[in-house]
Amino acid sequence: MTGAESLLQTLVANEIEVCFMNPGTSEMHFVSALDKVPGMRGILCLYEGVCSGAADGYARMKGKPAAALLHLGPGLGNSLSNFHNARKARTPIVAIVGEHSTAHLKYDAPLTADIGAFARTVSKEIRTVMSAATIGATASATIEAAIAPPGQISVLIVPADYSWLPSEAIGPVVRRPLRERPRSEVVEAAAWVLCYGKPAAIVLGGSSVNRRALDAAARLDAATGVRFFADRSAPRLASGRGFAIEKIPYFPEDASKALNGLKNMILVEAQTPVSFFGYPNTPGSPVPDSCTVSTLATREQDGTAALEALVLAVDAPAIRAEVASQVEDLPEGPLNLHAIGKTIARFMPENSIVSDEMVSSSAPVLVHLLNAPPHDQLTITGGAIGQGLPVAVGAAVACPDRKVLALEADGSAMYSLQALWTMARENLDVTVVIFANHRYRILDIEMKRTGAAGVGKSANDMLDLGRPSLDFVHLSLGMGVPASRAATAEEFILQFKEAVGVRGPRLIEAVL
Amino acid sequence: MTGAESLLQTLVANEIEVCFMNPGTSEMHFVSALDKVPGMRGILCLYEGVCSGAADGYARMKGKPAAALLHLGPGLGNSLSNFHNARKARTPIVAIVGEHSTAHLKYDAPLTADIGAFARTVSKEIRTVMSAATIGATASATIEAAIAPPGQISVLIVPADYSWLPSEAIGPVVRRPLRERPRSEVVEAAAWVLCYGKPAAIVLGGSSVNRRALDAAARLDAATGVRFFADRSAPRLASGRGFAIEKIPYFPEDASKALNGLKNMILVEAQTPVSFFGYPNTPGSPVPDSCTVSTLATREQDGTAALEALVLAVDAPAIRAEVASQVEDLPEGPLNLHAIGKTIARFMPENSIVSDEMVSSSAPVLVHLLNAPPHDQLTITGGAIGQGLPVAVGAAVACPDRKVLALEADGSAMYSLQALWTMARENLDVTVVIFANHRYRILDIEMKRTGAAGVGKSANDMLDLGRPSLDFVHLSLGMGVPASRAATAEEFILQFKEAVGVRGPRLIEAVL
Repeated sequence: MTGAESLLQTLVANEIEVCFMNPGTSEMHFVSALDKVPGMRGILCLYEGVCSGAADGYARMKGKPAAALLHLGPGLGNSLSNFHNARKARTPIVAIVGEHSTAHLKYDAPLTADIGAFARTVSKEIRTVMSAATIGATASATIEAAIAPPGQISVLIVPADYSWLPSEAIGPVVRRPLRERPRSEVVEAAAWVLCYGKPAAIVLGGSSVNRRALDAAARLDAATGVRFFADRSAPRLASGRGFAIEKIPYFPEDASKALNGLKNMILVEAQTPVSFFGYPNTPGSPVPDSCTVSTLATREQDGTAALEALVLAVDAPAIRAEVASQVEDLPEGPLNLHAIGKTIARFMPENSIVSDEMVSSSAPVLVHLLNAPPHDQLTITGGAIGQGLPVAVGAAVACPDRKVLALEADGSAMYSLQALWTMARENLDVTVVIFANHRYRILDIEMKRTGAAGVGKSANDMLDLGRPSLDFVHLSLGMGVPASRAATAEEFILQFKEAVGVRGPRLIEAVL
Repeated sequence: MTGAESLLQTLVANEIEVCFMNPGTSEMHFVSALDKVPGMRGILCLYEGVCSGAADGYARMKGKPAAALLHLGPGLGNSLSNFHNARKARTPIVAIVGEHSTAHLKYDAPLTADIGAFARTVSKEIRTVMSAATIGATASATIEAAIAPPGQISVLIVPADYSWLPSEAIGPVVRRPLRERPRSEVVEAAAWVLCYGKPAAIVLGGSSVNRRALDAAARLDAATGVRFFADRSAPRLASGRGFAIEKIPYFPEDASKALNGLKNMILVEAQTPVSFFGYPNTPGSPVPDSCTVSTLATREQDGTAALEALVLAVDAPAIRAEVASQVEDLPEGPLNLHAIGKTIARFMPENSIVSDEMVSSSAPVLVHLLNAPPHDQLTITGGAIGQGLPVAVGAAVACPDRKVLALEADGSAMYSLQALWTMARENLDVTVVIFANHRYRILDIEMKRTGAAGVGKSANDMLDLGRPSLDFVHLSLGMGVPASRAATAEEFILQFKEAVGVRGPRLIEAVL
């Protein structure tokens, strides 16, 4: 057995069964071992940012890590912005980075770089394999760090010779840690706030925006009138018909308005709300000065169990689940965001997974998804665009029986469009909708907000994606994904129904 | 005047006149200032890896830095692999990275990250603006560091509030440093080697593989029989008809054979040759143990002047410039690498710039370019693929009167294909040839070399780009670049002649 085979065996023994990869010379033994060690599915991505985003999407849906295999420092470099998003999402990921063979490290070879320095941008858990014999043990330690609650990127640097040298030992199987429940005093303090500290709001984040947690939230809402918000950076949100909670708004004025008058805020796996950016003469946090912020469950704890404990503590009665479904009229005429939102809400299959990277188009669409069949939304957690399509790849690999909808701004799509090819290759069940407004539209707004003085011709050029126009039908066909263009509501309805009605990847360019 | 305007004024005063950018909210005042400060051309790239590669290509051709404008840590992250190549090329670049406003740094906002950590992967020269008043002075210091010989990436981190606050001072104009000539003892020592230390070879790297240096090399070769090689990582090589030097071969056995028997090796702005990768049972450097390596000019010094001094020191007579031009027969029939090489050599305009990222296809094509009209080649210096198209963008911006040929492997092209859009938008005079062999072909070879045990089905899948086939005609049209496909030599000849005969971007998918 080679070191690489020992590494693969250790991963598989620890139920890490998918590796999103873009390998190079120093990873050839790992690649070769794929045929020797059963149980590992290698998925090729044409760019490392797809690997990192896919590993993020996979783990968000599966609740356990995938591996990503990357080629030396620059390969890791290409993956960093989506790892940044995964870091903010607290996603468990095992990032395996090939290094030159140890004898070669003394030379300044072209690809020689400080891999640890690249890794430190997104992780504090960085291990380097020190021998072929210990490769499995080091891999197990890497996995253990990745899955420690709430989860994180854990990096394993593997010198090529330790992959090719013989190794007999496989690393141990790591115990899967359970998230702790909050202590009863903490639950009682929160219960006190719900009775005597109103107006109060509970902010759900981390793993706690799931259907079970929302059922508890509905009871708490009905019994105590406490309001609920979702952390903007919650990696995964249950949405659709039923008790719905809104995200804290993006812009600070809207967020301040939403939180205005609160006396108490209780965090459940969430962080204190903060503005995305700082602006001139605008507070950085929308939380009112007079509001006391307390924590019911930390990011490491089990927020869902905490909410259920809180239901018991305030003795909130069971409620009849709301099942009313408003059927909206089908939109007609020119295509706009509301027409798209209505169409998706009407025709998306139940239990879909929505990868939301609509950026400036997001809010008008999400409003309608509150009336859609129950589904999960995967949000952009770290603000680094280029996440949406890769996360959709990972979610589709994790949940082959669920339809994935990648709702994607045109500007963001261009960051990691290579994900389409992996969708085609793996026949992933993803419907991609490109919101083609031919602008970095969000920056039109941000330009004004930051007080920058207007958009002259040169400045305007830097926000404009329309010269030349990106043709997403061509781009999609170029990577093997069937595609069409919709310029009216009627066209969009037809194309969307068709796309979600078949299995496999489809792309619709929605012309805005 | 805002801080951003002061920054732009400082850049322009220092003859930094082009900025490749992908801005976000924290850079809005910089973007807005483009219309206030004359003399700066902003060029939008749809992905930061295009910005960094274009800045590299620009400076290699222009001999002075461009700026790159990037959005916080993740934006810098996306640029790192091409900055890695630029670092290895010693290219001067001013990398400007927007940061949150200082008041916002205390929050853990989604895009908050350690920008310095990202920067340290590719640079030791990292400066953070400490006030709006000092933004110009800090920018000047950043420029000074960038252009200090041999050149490097110099990073300027700009908190958003120092861009929007008023600033009166512009930074000083930095003195352009001259490269030193080597001391006469060093030249005499090299002359001694050429007379008494043979067999000897001179390795040219850095800025010293230019036409003037090659003229000197031709005289030294004729007078002393010393052999010449180009450093594989030389960022820019003069090639074509006339005295030609070959690169040290890629594979260690070939390199060892080329250097076999040498008693002396003299480095001119070059590093001691080293294998790209370490392999089992193969030395990491192809330099024979018995060979003494000395340095005529360091990376910081003027290698061209050093060679000319050496010509005088050995009293090498002038030689008649060789002008013989072999006209090869036009290829016919199925398309292959030699047919492509012959066609390009025959029809490329004199003074073209070749961005070479052909990877496994490179050697058979470059052989023919030795017989092409004089031209410059830009090589992939750090081994991080995805450089070829962005570098072509930068070269075309730097030299609008020269045809740029981007010779690009299909796998590498997919790393930074967004460069095509910038070629279309700026109407850059670039002919792109995609070598479509539908494989990571180089890894087929590397798989065997590393001793990895064969390619089973799963491993083979990780090297295969043919399922589905990438259609570069579609991909190119999707980004606004006219494109065609050539499957025979006759088709390739026709399409290549047409492409180089017009101004503006064209893409040819060469089916191999």
